[in-house]
Amino acid sequence: MTPDASSSSIERLVAVLVVIFTVEAGKLRILLIRRSADPFKDHWSLPGGRLLPADSLAEAATRRLEVETGVTDVFLEQLYTFSDLDEAGSIAAAYWALVDPNRAKLPDRLEWQPRWYAVDDLPDLAFLNGNVVQYAVTRLRNKLAYSNVAYSLLAAEFTLSQLQQVYEAILGRSMDKRNFRKRIISLDIIEPTGRFSGQGRHRPAQLYAFKERRPVVF
Amino acid sequence: MTPDASSSSIERLVAVLVVIFTVEAGKLRILLIRRSADPFKDHWSLPGGRLLPADSLAEAATRRLEVETGVTDVFLEQLYTFSDLDEAGSIAAAYWALVDPNRAKLPDRLEWQPRWYAVDDLPDLAFLNGNVVQYAVTRLRNKLAYSNVAYSLLAAEFTLSQLQQVYEAILGRSMDKRNFRKRIISLDIIEPTGRFSGQGRHRPAQLYAFKERRPVVF
Repeated sequence: MTPDASSSSIERLVAVLVVIFTVEAGKLRILLIRRSADPFKDHWSLPGGRLLPADSLAEAATRRLEVETGVTDVFLEQLYTFSDLDEAGSIAAAYWALVDPNRAKLPDRLEWQPRWYAVDDLPDLAFLNGNVVQYAVTRLRNKLAYSNVAYSLLAAEFTLSQLQQVYEAILGRSMDKRNFRKRIISLDIIEPTGRFSGQGRHRPAQLYAFKERRPVVF
Repeated sequence: MTPDASSSSIERLVAVLVVIFTVEAGKLRILLIRRSADPFKDHWSLPGGRLLPADSLAEAATRRLEVETGVTDVFLEQLYTFSDLDEAGSIAAAYWALVDPNRAKLPDRLEWQPRWYAVDDLPDLAFLNGNVVQYAVTRLRNKLAYSNVAYSLLAAEFTLSQLQQVYEAILGRSMDKRNFRKRIISLDIIEPTGRFSGQGRHRPAQLYAFKERRPVVF
């Protein structure tokens, strides 16, 4: 048999899944939707769907992200393609995205019941989706160490305390304030805006912005 | 429409491709095979084939690697899944592997004409395979900077000169001998074996081995 043998039509169901992360109330969270049909009816699952004809994987992932959150201009990247999430051997191309919770507008459709769940307190997920989430969390934590991806979880301007909260939520541990600030400044990925946060019982804090609001590896 | 709508059977052709790298005669090379049928008859392409029923992606990639090189206990990792390599929108899950040229045994079948090509001097490739190769070369170069993947391109024991040749071939540039040795020793991923290379016109050189012959990130 040659590599291009085409003796029979062998096709597979191909789905696109999106692990959509946010950080809210000090927790790393993902968006889950409730399945309305079997299999796994009433179980929670990652947003996704079958790849439609003429769709590329990236188009399908972008559209799913927009349907669920209303945004597209955020960090979105292919994660991994799985072939072992169900018994049928469906192909599931997983993507992951990072969304500022203040920008995400969850759709107001009761049928899906979209909801943010803390990754350290997930319900039982359909179709081994838990494996996908675990893989995505690992990728996010790794990528935080060598890139500016946190930009996509924050507003255009933020205080260093807000930035530290995002890092702590992702890594699941508290960090020393002085060391965090020294480290993050040395990376040269953020810059002071010259403006200050006005609200709150604390004294005004310098506002910072990411130098680039697109993925940069350092 | 709900995410689990299953109104019609929408399936796609799924292929698995493998970018198999080696370093030989100072060059980074990949294995190409010659297509024996249309489309792209007589063009060179990456080894691969359709995903068979009941196969997982990893199984298909491992089998393809074994068919082409005779080895399986080498570095093999998923690279990226493409949906834009042909007009039909086929899904191509690409893997990449690193093989010591002294271990690889290319199959003796004229039909496929498997052959190592230097990545800086590739022929025209079928199906936008060039995009896959470019992506794989970038991943390999990045991964060299933060992991021990070079282990999979070398024999169990090697001299520091041989190791440097592998790094230079991958990165496509020559490196200062003293700096290279200082850097590679500081990474703590190799160790002296106590044995020395016997052959050649040079004086015997210390032989080294990777501490781990499996992927380790540092």
